[in-house]
Amino acid sequence: MEHLDDQQIKEDDRNYVLHSWSKQKDVHPKIIKKAQGIFFWDETGKRFYDMCSQLVYLNVGHNHPKLMEAFKHIGEIPLSAPGFATESKAELAHKIIEVAPKNMAKVFFANGGADSNDHAVKIARMYSGRYKIFSRYRSYHGATFGAGNLSGENRRFTVEPGLPGFIKFETPYLYRESIAFDSEEAAAAFYLDRLNSQILYEGPESIAAIFMESIPGSNGVLIPPKGYMEGVRELCTKYGILMICDEVMAGFGRTGKMFAVEHFGIEPDMMTFAKGVTCGYSPLGGVIVSKQIADYFDDHVLMTGLTYSGHTVSTQIGCATLDVYKEEHLIDHAAAMGDVLAERLDKLKRFASVGEVRCIGLFAAVELVKDKETKEPLIAYGMDFGRDKVGLMKKFVGMLMAQGFYTYSHESSVMIAPPLIITEAEINEAMDRFEAALTQFEKEVLFADSKLMTP
Amino acid sequence: MEHLDDQQIKEDDRNYVLHSWSKQKDVHPKIIKKAQGIFFWDETGKRFYDMCSQLVYLNVGHNHPKLMEAFKHIGEIPLSAPGFATESKAELAHKIIEVAPKNMAKVFFANGGADSNDHAVKIARMYSGRYKIFSRYRSYHGATFGAGNLSGENRRFTVEPGLPGFIKFETPYLYRESIAFDSEEAAAAFYLDRLNSQILYEGPESIAAIFMESIPGSNGVLIPPKGYMEGVRELCTKYGILMICDEVMAGFGRTGKMFAVEHFGIEPDMMTFAKGVTCGYSPLGGVIVSKQIADYFDDHVLMTGLTYSGHTVSTQIGCATLDVYKEEHLIDHAAAMGDVLAERLDKLKRFASVGEVRCIGLFAAVELVKDKETKEPLIAYGMDFGRDKVGLMKKFVGMLMAQGFYTYSHESSVMIAPPLIITEAEINEAMDRFEAALTQFEKEVLFADSKLMTP
Repeated sequence: MEHLDDQQIKEDDRNYVLHSWSKQKDVHPKIIKKAQGIFFWDETGKRFYDMCSQLVYLNVGHNHPKLMEAFKHIGEIPLSAPGFATESKAELAHKIIEVAPKNMAKVFFANGGADSNDHAVKIARMYSGRYKIFSRYRSYHGATFGAGNLSGENRRFTVEPGLPGFIKFETPYLYRESIAFDSEEAAAAFYLDRLNSQILYEGPESIAAIFMESIPGSNGVLIPPKGYMEGVRELCTKYGILMICDEVMAGFGRTGKMFAVEHFGIEPDMMTFAKGVTCGYSPLGGVIVSKQIADYFDDHVLMTGLTYSGHTVSTQIGCATLDVYKEEHLIDHAAAMGDVLAERLDKLKRFASVGEVRCIGLFAAVELVKDKETKEPLIAYGMDFGRDKVGLMKKFVGMLMAQGFYTYSHESSVMIAPPLIITEAEINEAMDRFEAALTQFEKEVLFADSKLMTP
Repeated sequence: MEHLDDQQIKEDDRNYVLHSWSKQKDVHPKIIKKAQGIFFWDETGKRFYDMCSQLVYLNVGHNHPKLMEAFKHIGEIPLSAPGFATESKAELAHKIIEVAPKNMAKVFFANGGADSNDHAVKIARMYSGRYKIFSRYRSYHGATFGAGNLSGENRRFTVEPGLPGFIKFETPYLYRESIAFDSEEAAAAFYLDRLNSQILYEGPESIAAIFMESIPGSNGVLIPPKGYMEGVRELCTKYGILMICDEVMAGFGRTGKMFAVEHFGIEPDMMTFAKGVTCGYSPLGGVIVSKQIADYFDDHVLMTGLTYSGHTVSTQIGCATLDVYKEEHLIDHAAAMGDVLAERLDKLKRFASVGEVRCIGLFAAVELVKDKETKEPLIAYGMDFGRDKVGLMKKFVGMLMAQGFYTYSHESSVMIAPPLIITEAEINEAMDRFEAALTQFEKEVLFADSKLMTP
């Protein structure tokens, strides 16, 4: 294949492509010219540690030989519409159910996380005959109208006026809670009591589902306090409400378990997935449903669908990806490397601007503050997406990039979620760079301007 | 790669896969074992003319060598998140703008038709600052919450209670209109007058967009009367309403033009696409926006996005697909073959059960009736998806399948939309089979039961 030169790529990109979540004039994209494992190289030859796995999907790393090989075999299974039985679709569904919680029975395939969440809401309503959907503030589920209305942050404002029956409740966020708790369990009890009240206020018999990221990702890896998820499961069971866990980001090994719900020993009624199922090598998402829900649709029409449900190519890539997790013991490796990362993150607490670090497996966030005492965040809530004129987080991310540490931020948290194949040495190398950038940031930006912060 | 045997595929499919739009116990899927051009073979070795291009996406036919070759080169461009400039994303956007109406400037990429429509609604609201969205009865735009609420048929009921501000108006459907018109132009004037009134009733200043399939596909290839689309364009311009054309099914040569809007000589403000852009070889969709809209987002944040916007693999397949249209002169060929198909369809009018045939390029539907005089449809409106207990359309489609003519029906219309590479001889062979099935259907089913129909 003939290839365009870098200048032409950038010119065509600027002239013809609309970039997500941005003012287009502010988009000055790099080109990834080469990539291998946890590294990529831009058009200047600079190497980056890909510390967010692109958008937290590249769990097996860049240019994985087994997945590259899979593309060479694409012709072996003919493309078929969803109405057919397709080898890779059937096999991948089987493989997913094998690694899912025991109550799970069938898979409905979609294209990505957002539309999977839309379909899950529809399935919950069909199955339950109820229409209200609970989801949480400080959550992100995607940008389609269903997923957007589920989301509890400012990216949902463009899908408003919102869908009737979509109700928000709180995500436990102990670091920013106005009261202190004696234990995580006490915190969980507090939040569960409030959720229970809200369920009663809304009418349990009208609530189809409680929809939640097992561990909210984009909003800063908000790990639930001990007992919380188990308590939500109990409330759902008590009121006949479906518990739907969005595992789009947290699933497929990211947290050191195949699915994040395993940390809590719970079985949701449905789970949605995307990203890690193919590691982004081909677009794929889906909904995993329990046996009870699967059985219901034996005799009731599943009134949802899409052209590429169980796409032949994407499910082939999915099969190869799940083989890689198994053959390379990536889930166990992620758990072990998560300990290494957690140790390094713990050391960040000595920095004046580090408010909290949160880490579970290779899913971590570093939350920055102007003042450790007041916990004032670097940017005020809701000031993402170009609304923060000072641009502190942007400056810090720029310094990380200069250090060859590639990631992104949301609100005042920096995401750290490298490919699961990362080694101990690489974690340490990358975190050295993180510390160097943070040192520079505090010295040149935060402490340099007394209006921003005093050390 | 090791492959599963057919029995195992079917077993895994039955046990682990949820199929779209079906009671699962009614799903008895075939397996496509081999496919080439317009043909595929099932697990019994039976050959089928793929007369609906799977789900009206396989425009270049099965197993196209150029696309198979493209998969072998996938490793050449590293996977990159949407924030990067990626060669294939930039090149495909450029290629699309080259073949789009002249006013079009930039492309926002998504995964499929449904989510593309969701994003288009969001873009329209952001750009216009208005929130009402007009779309039509007898339309289908997809199954996500945005696309589902745009849709004007019973597949939208599972996304209700609906989105505030989504308003429906009529699709011109002269065959089932209660009044007769002297000309298509007179019909267009009638529908445009009603649309104009409805715009005034709803308040033009609150209407962001009028969203329509250029030619409604799933609902029976409802070709607009002469002057209608031009009139909608005029109303949109008059009231400052954006005209958004869904070209998911009709685009990329299906109607004998690159985009169906070319038939009407109009320039919409946005167009959505999917299917034909990759011919389903990899999931891809998107929104094409006018220069005015593109420019707006230079200085305003485009508040929408998705993980796989401009997916590296899908856009590579898209580039190869657009090359095939060009190199094989498929658009012109589709126009020529459309004439052949139209001639064959015209001959179907002699059948007692053929109410109307509609055809534009290789995009056609045959609408069946119980009685030509009363125009009583074979199945009553809204009785699709297992609600029609008699199952007349299902029986007819079964007879088509027995003849080796693969397609699907919706309401009382049978879709005919073969790959654009089909030859004159193949159209005639396929339509001979269609006639044989229809002859059998009338004799064995319709005329055999006097309660259903008399000849």
